[in-house]
Amino acid sequence: MGRPRTSLIDLERITTVALQLVDEDGEFSVVAIARRLGVQTASLYHHVDGRDGIVELLRERVCADIDAAALDAADWREALAGWARSYRAAFGAHPRAIPLLMASPVRAPRVLSQYERAVGVLLAAGFPQGEVMKVIIALENLILGSALDLAAPQPMWVLTDEAKTPMLARALAASPPADRADASFELALAGCLSHLADLRDDLAGA
Amino acid sequence: MGRPRTSLIDLERITTVALQLVDEDGEFSVVAIARRLGVQTASLYHHVDGRDGIVELLRERVCADIDAAALDAADWREALAGWARSYRAAFGAHPRAIPLLMASPVRAPRVLSQYERAVGVLLAAGFPQGEVMKVIIALENLILGSALDLAAPQPMWVLTDEAKTPMLARALAASPPADRADASFELALAGCLSHLADLRDDLAGA
Repeated sequence: MGRPRTSLIDLERITTVALQLVDEDGEFSVVAIARRLGVQTASLYHHVDGRDGIVELLRERVCADIDAAALDAADWREALAGWARSYRAAFGAHPRAIPLLMASPVRAPRVLSQYERAVGVLLAAGFPQGEVMKVIIALENLILGSALDLAAPQPMWVLTDEAKTPMLARALAASPPADRADASFELALAGCLSHLADLRDDLAGA
Repeated sequence: MGRPRTSLIDLERITTVALQLVDEDGEFSVVAIARRLGVQTASLYHHVDGRDGIVELLRERVCADIDAAALDAADWREALAGWARSYRAAFGAHPRAIPLLMASPVRAPRVLSQYERAVGVLLAAGFPQGEVMKVIIALENLILGSALDLAAPQPMWVLTDEAKTPMLARALAASPPADRADASFELALAGCLSHLADLRDDLAGA
């Protein structure tokens, strides 16, 4: 690993400022990054591969908090569950980056290598090659929907006339908001994983 | 139902323009709506309850395409699956509205009444009151993550050096992008629903 060289330090500062802007506004511009760094816009382009390059720097930064080592767990379900939980936490820390990152293709090598490991886990578990990306995307849908939900306002439902939605009023009262987000994610994750286990047995079986 | 009155027609025009802006930019402002409608900003405030009011108009508009009648299906799993599929399609048609709507509490009466129906389905199926919102949120996480994914670029993974991620390269080649989004959603949905069936048996059982 070693210490980053000068150009990397610059990339780190650019990424930090870009992420601050995205956390604040859901967007960034090269001009706004330059302004905040106190440099000329043109000089930024010496360091980064345009706007798309900055998006990939953001992706690497956010994904650096994913515990890819979780994928080394002996049991594939445990491996995917650990990866999914840390993936959710990493993106949940920057919910406004989610739409931005989902709208742009993944090209960052370090992020692609995380996918490579996840693919490896599923292949080793016995999933056929043609099913692997579907499984990963299914988990990501759940992870990213839940990460966005981590930033939801509390309360998320404001009943203007409880008499009109009495069952909803009682259901909301019966489960405190603080308990819901994690429980909902774990419920959907457990559902996905147990279904995947059945699917794998069907596909790999015989 | 009848024909809308003048003020409703105005609300519809306001909503249409706000949704156009969100589809284009992921955001709207009252000023931008007024400009596009060719009216004074101040006069817009005679019709809507500020920015939050417009968010709720957007929510009602997007949710109007959810097939709430699907919730009347005799089998609760079928009811939830039908609702989830049309919910995904409705939000998938306006992916840039998703972060905006998830960041603001639900107050629109017609949307709250859809939740009331979904709560009713789960209670009738035997889910305890304290579990109902968790189940709904779990499904929504999956639905909204998948709806965002419907707007993902194709290809979503661009391998700069295939030799570094050979398993990912083969997994991507083995499943065409066009097949993945729906298959991934159905996989996660089936997983959630079958897990919910087990959970319900455990909770309601005995």
